[in-house]
Amino acid sequence: MEPEEQIQLIKKNTVEIIQESELLRRITSKGSLRIKLGVDPTTSDIHLGHSIVLSKLRCFQDLGHKVILLIGDFTARVGDPSGRNKTRKPLSIKEIAANARTYREQAFKILAPKKTEVLFNSEWLAKMNFSDVLKLASYYTVARMLERDDFSLRYQKKYPIGLHEFMYPLMQAYDSVAMHADVELGGTDQKFNLLLGRQIQKAYGEPSQIVITMPLLEGIDGSKKMSKSLGNYIGVTEPPYEMYGKVMSIPDELIFKYFRLLTSLSEEEVDSREKESKEGRLHPGKAKEELAERIVSSYHSKSGAKVAKERFEAIFKRKETPTDIPSYILASDEMKEGKIWIVRILQLTGLANSGSEARRLIKQGGVKWDEKIVKDIGWEVSPGESHVLQAGKRKFIRIVRKSQ
Amino acid sequence: MEPEEQIQLIKKNTVEIIQESELLRRITSKGSLRIKLGVDPTTSDIHLGHSIVLSKLRCFQDLGHKVILLIGDFTARVGDPSGRNKTRKPLSIKEIAANARTYREQAFKILAPKKTEVLFNSEWLAKMNFSDVLKLASYYTVARMLERDDFSLRYQKKYPIGLHEFMYPLMQAYDSVAMHADVELGGTDQKFNLLLGRQIQKAYGEPSQIVITMPLLEGIDGSKKMSKSLGNYIGVTEPPYEMYGKVMSIPDELIFKYFRLLTSLSEEEVDSREKESKEGRLHPGKAKEELAERIVSSYHSKSGAKVAKERFEAIFKRKETPTDIPSYILASDEMKEGKIWIVRILQLTGLANSGSEARRLIKQGGVKWDEKIVKDIGWEVSPGESHVLQAGKRKFIRIVRKSQ
Repeated sequence: MEPEEQIQLIKKNTVEIIQESELLRRITSKGSLRIKLGVDPTTSDIHLGHSIVLSKLRCFQDLGHKVILLIGDFTARVGDPSGRNKTRKPLSIKEIAANARTYREQAFKILAPKKTEVLFNSEWLAKMNFSDVLKLASYYTVARMLERDDFSLRYQKKYPIGLHEFMYPLMQAYDSVAMHADVELGGTDQKFNLLLGRQIQKAYGEPSQIVITMPLLEGIDGSKKMSKSLGNYIGVTEPPYEMYGKVMSIPDELIFKYFRLLTSLSEEEVDSREKESKEGRLHPGKAKEELAERIVSSYHSKSGAKVAKERFEAIFKRKETPTDIPSYILASDEMKEGKIWIVRILQLTGLANSGSEARRLIKQGGVKWDEKIVKDIGWEVSPGESHVLQAGKRKFIRIVRKSQ
Repeated sequence: MEPEEQIQLIKKNTVEIIQESELLRRITSKGSLRIKLGVDPTTSDIHLGHSIVLSKLRCFQDLGHKVILLIGDFTARVGDPSGRNKTRKPLSIKEIAANARTYREQAFKILAPKKTEVLFNSEWLAKMNFSDVLKLASYYTVARMLERDDFSLRYQKKYPIGLHEFMYPLMQAYDSVAMHADVELGGTDQKFNLLLGRQIQKAYGEPSQIVITMPLLEGIDGSKKMSKSLGNYIGVTEPPYEMYGKVMSIPDELIFKYFRLLTSLSEEEVDSREKESKEGRLHPGKAKEELAERIVSSYHSKSGAKVAKERFEAIFKRKETPTDIPSYILASDEMKEGKIWIVRILQLTGLANSGSEARRLIKQGGVKWDEKIVKDIGWEVSPGESHVLQAGKRKFIRIVRKSQ
């Protein structure tokens, strides 16, 4: 495809391309470019927030470019050596490999496996000695690093910033040197780091990469950035019904942003739906149904989406308890004198991830036992042969007492 | 010697001991301590400013402790990798070895060679990899590094500070870990770095070194810190007459500070001289003569000091031209038609280090040709068989025309 046409496809949904003219020149002169995406190996599950960048990578692949997933295993292996930052515990090589494998498998729901290369940055970073590190560090100043939003805030608030933390952005930037990246993609929150890559490549005598930032996606709560730790995410491997239900739960004002960023509809097609909605000719619920069907179809199948939709409607529109719910077999040694605490059973079944989550669910009136709301946190259940336990709107589990 | 008595000797002339109680405990429990002095291998010539710290090291040696000169060859070899700092050009291994050799030879005018160990920090720093560097960096924060006077000033004035510069103090601090220093000495301007050593040792699970700061010595101009680059120094290898003359040139208000820091006189002996001087019973010139004699004697010999004194008096008190002055043989190809420019001859003979210094000397009326002041910068001399060229008060050279 002609470089100018490629640019038109690449531009869709991007926030910034720095610089578009460079990208055009690079495609024109080089043909196939090396497109970098840095991957944090402390997480493995990909959600729809990640899919925006991955879809753009897929677009590059379809245009004949080479996509490189760069697993930041070196940083993950080092962790936070001071131990100050609890979220940066060192990972073992095994854990990193497992996470990278999962990430790759999930990413291949979007990327073309044969056009995707995977590299690990320990390959070059682990080999650097003190002189190499000093050289790298010499290419950036303290003042400019302190301009980065998060550092700036922490410095002003007098929260400690370890000196080693200043090295992490430089490591990511050096990756672009080592792997000869032509383009690096990331969310808008990565702009500082991506631009640093340009500068460090230049310092090492390499051509500077073109930086492309993509919009961040709000989670299903409609306020914060989608993230696993906030629980407001839709994972790309979630079963059709879960995925469908989560999309249906997003606030109306996100519908068309989701359409734009998560479906293959053209801008015009989304625009026309948005117009219809504004004019009252398209009900938000209907729009959401289409959105949910499209998203579920792309990660599963059309038929999967259809089943999910039917089930969703049965439960929410007709308030039925679904029939195809999973069972949990309650063993007698999990009970005391035939009784079990409601909080405990919520945890055992996985409906709550912790005792405190179970308590919160009960307090919010979100837990039902055989369709009756559970109000007493201290309730000791005496299970009969079979019951339905419900947590929130969409999670059901059948509790079956193990026969003696 | 009893630890308490040792402390009394060690304390003399120090500015701070952090902490004296720790030093007492360490001597009591360990007996012989490891005393560190960091040496910058970009310079080799030792002057009286350095002698203050070296004398304190000698004091430790006499008390049975082990002195370690730590040559910072790693930093010197790396230089400033950004090339921004012109004073931090990388040195070759050969240059560093030569400087270290010269330094050691000169330091042995004060230290006991057999009780002195010499280490090079490349031994451990060159072996550190990126993970090791991150670990080291993690033990200190950006904010605290920015509190160091020079960094703080540069940051406020918006002068760039390379990220690698933050690593240099950490490297010096890590040296204390690697060499198991019990005590580190330095001038008061080194206090930040010395204290960082304490903290980094602790982070690595080592006992923290005791820090001893010594006063800085003003140079012979009486205002700035003695330093080679400012030219206001007295080198420990300077010949007796030069040394004597330079001491005689210091301003009166420095006399007793020099006595205290550069001679072996006791505090009481210096105090009594200072008292006599204040009461007008000791003329500053007389005090200076004793000071000069004592300093020259300690680096040369009593007889050397005596000769220097006599020569000094002959020239300054009786305004005589000395008889034992060196000769410069002027070759005919150094002249043009039997003539040579006065500025050129000042440079050739080494009386001036540059053309601009030669011009300045002439303008100040500091140059004499056969005891007559040279006033014309453009003067072309037509040398006869033998002349005396004088620059400043104490430098004489006989110009001898090479016989054809």
